[in-house]
Amino acid sequence: MKKEHEKQIMKAVNELKEREKISNFYFVACGGSQAVLMAGQYMFDKETDIPAYVYTANEFVYNKPKALSENSVVITCSHSGTTPETIEATKLARNIGAMTISLSNVEGSPLWKISEYPIHYDWGKDVDASDLNKGILYGLLFNILDIVSPNKKWQEGLNDLNRLEELTVRVKEQYKNFAKEWGKKHKRDKIIYTIGSGMNYGEMYSTALCWFMEMQWINSGVIHSGEYFHGPFEITDYDMPLLLVKSIGNTRYLDQRVEDFSTKFSDRVTILDQKDFNLEDISENIREYIATILSGVVIRQLVEAIAFERGHSLDVRRYMWQMEY
Amino acid sequence: MKKEHEKQIMKAVNELKEREKISNFYFVACGGSQAVLMAGQYMFDKETDIPAYVYTANEFVYNKPKALSENSVVITCSHSGTTPETIEATKLARNIGAMTISLSNVEGSPLWKISEYPIHYDWGKDVDASDLNKGILYGLLFNILDIVSPNKKWQEGLNDLNRLEELTVRVKEQYKNFAKEWGKKHKRDKIIYTIGSGMNYGEMYSTALCWFMEMQWINSGVIHSGEYFHGPFEITDYDMPLLLVKSIGNTRYLDQRVEDFSTKFSDRVTILDQKDFNLEDISENIREYIATILSGVVIRQLVEAIAFERGHSLDVRRYMWQMEY
Repeated sequence: MKKEHEKQIMKAVNELKEREKISNFYFVACGGSQAVLMAGQYMFDKETDIPAYVYTANEFVYNKPKALSENSVVITCSHSGTTPETIEATKLARNIGAMTISLSNVEGSPLWKISEYPIHYDWGKDVDASDLNKGILYGLLFNILDIVSPNKKWQEGLNDLNRLEELTVRVKEQYKNFAKEWGKKHKRDKIIYTIGSGMNYGEMYSTALCWFMEMQWINSGVIHSGEYFHGPFEITDYDMPLLLVKSIGNTRYLDQRVEDFSTKFSDRVTILDQKDFNLEDISENIREYIATILSGVVIRQLVEAIAFERGHSLDVRRYMWQMEY
Repeated sequence: MKKEHEKQIMKAVNELKEREKISNFYFVACGGSQAVLMAGQYMFDKETDIPAYVYTANEFVYNKPKALSENSVVITCSHSGTTPETIEATKLARNIGAMTISLSNVEGSPLWKISEYPIHYDWGKDVDASDLNKGILYGLLFNILDIVSPNKKWQEGLNDLNRLEELTVRVKEQYKNFAKEWGKKHKRDKIIYTIGSGMNYGEMYSTALCWFMEMQWINSGVIHSGEYFHGPFEITDYDMPLLLVKSIGNTRYLDQRVEDFSTKFSDRVTILDQKDFNLEDISENIREYIATILSGVVIRQLVEAIAFERGHSLDVRRYMWQMEY
């Protein structure tokens, strides 16, 4: 028997199949949700010739892209379903007649109500990883990609997604001690830069802006591996902490260059090499995508470890939820 | 008599006029040059329905976008014309049959030779601002926009660009003392975040990655004004330095929100309000674009001031130009 979100995804996908014309895809959200959608923009850019863009919601609302039309598909996401900017962006898209698909953890939330095709994802420690936001998003994307750029790998990918929980448990076990040690070593860091390329950029974006700045009040900034040598590398010094995810995708060379250089001049570079995830049993064309989700799993372990060492709960906020802004 | 670069621009523009089909525009470069091209991607996104993308060069090379074709126009930029990644990206584009237009300060450089339509821009303190990289780029863009999205404002814009030098001198005079004070006040800062939206994001990107990190070894990170409230604002505290450019464009509200909040909790927020540039004598539809260039002029004054106060020359590098990497 199909799960609820599978029915919700197929409802959107079947509507897409009927569409005579799809001009472009817009991935629109804020903060961590935007970071998750960056993976979608990347996939479409690499796998299709249909234009795909990612926007922080208010930039989309206040500077409406001229190509946004009734032939656009706008995919939005808000965990609580109450993010005002994302709700406004979804309203704007609907008023223009674009197809709106929205992911949220809360059924019946304002975003849920305003969106044409709301899709629910689960949340929490005991939830099967394939039912979390990324598993659900990738399921949606693989289904859409199978329509706009048909390939048997998408069905393989959908099968692989069913193994996310097993892969997540495996990788958590694999990195348990590594994370503990990392937390101890970095608990006094005043700043930690994150860096990555390709599919992983979004993960490193949310690691900097959400995990470190928002949830640990640790200064941070995200750097694209391809940009490191064009400015940022000049701040590299023996005591500069850098968290690098090394891709198994096409841009691995960019990340390798960062590793080779930064480890020569800094003693505080941490490398998550996706090669160590042992994804041989995942279909080859899908590994890069699964690896990005698993990188997020490991990064969460690192962040939980450093939060413990610093005694700074990941649930503490001084402004968010505390006041109007 | 037309200047050399005007002839170079018109050569590219006339070729574009002849093109039967233009599928998309790619803006591809590294670091500061990519940041400058971000303005182009923004203009095309807002003013045309032709897809436009910005890439750091190696991401473009190693993850070739699927929509790149002989109907694409690829605009690249490298100051020295020797940036290997940008040369590779231009080669790749040419091999695919895309139209390649490249900006460089050095005629006859490797990029110059590999590109179909190279365009020269001047550099240096005594150069008329309209002949610098941004003046030349905007001249190219306004000409192209007049083809793909005809509007009398583009010709007005081209006239306005001729006044860049006068506007630059005026704004430098206006912010001279402001910059001096800012340099004194911030010379001990260990980190300075930059923030902006819309057309200004690219300027704030290069301010963080090139001016602060590369040329002053000051920690930094760029934040989009629309993202500030979705993570980064939690690091805001009384002593957190933030450099905000307040747009006169559609996204001014996003920047205003950042000002209203951040100044309540930090004593070290610097605001550059583009309203203060007095651009009444510039055509209304072009002001937002000119204001971005002028913001860059003021930011350069700030950086020169802080460099003086810190005794850290803007010409010092510890890795760039010092070694192979």
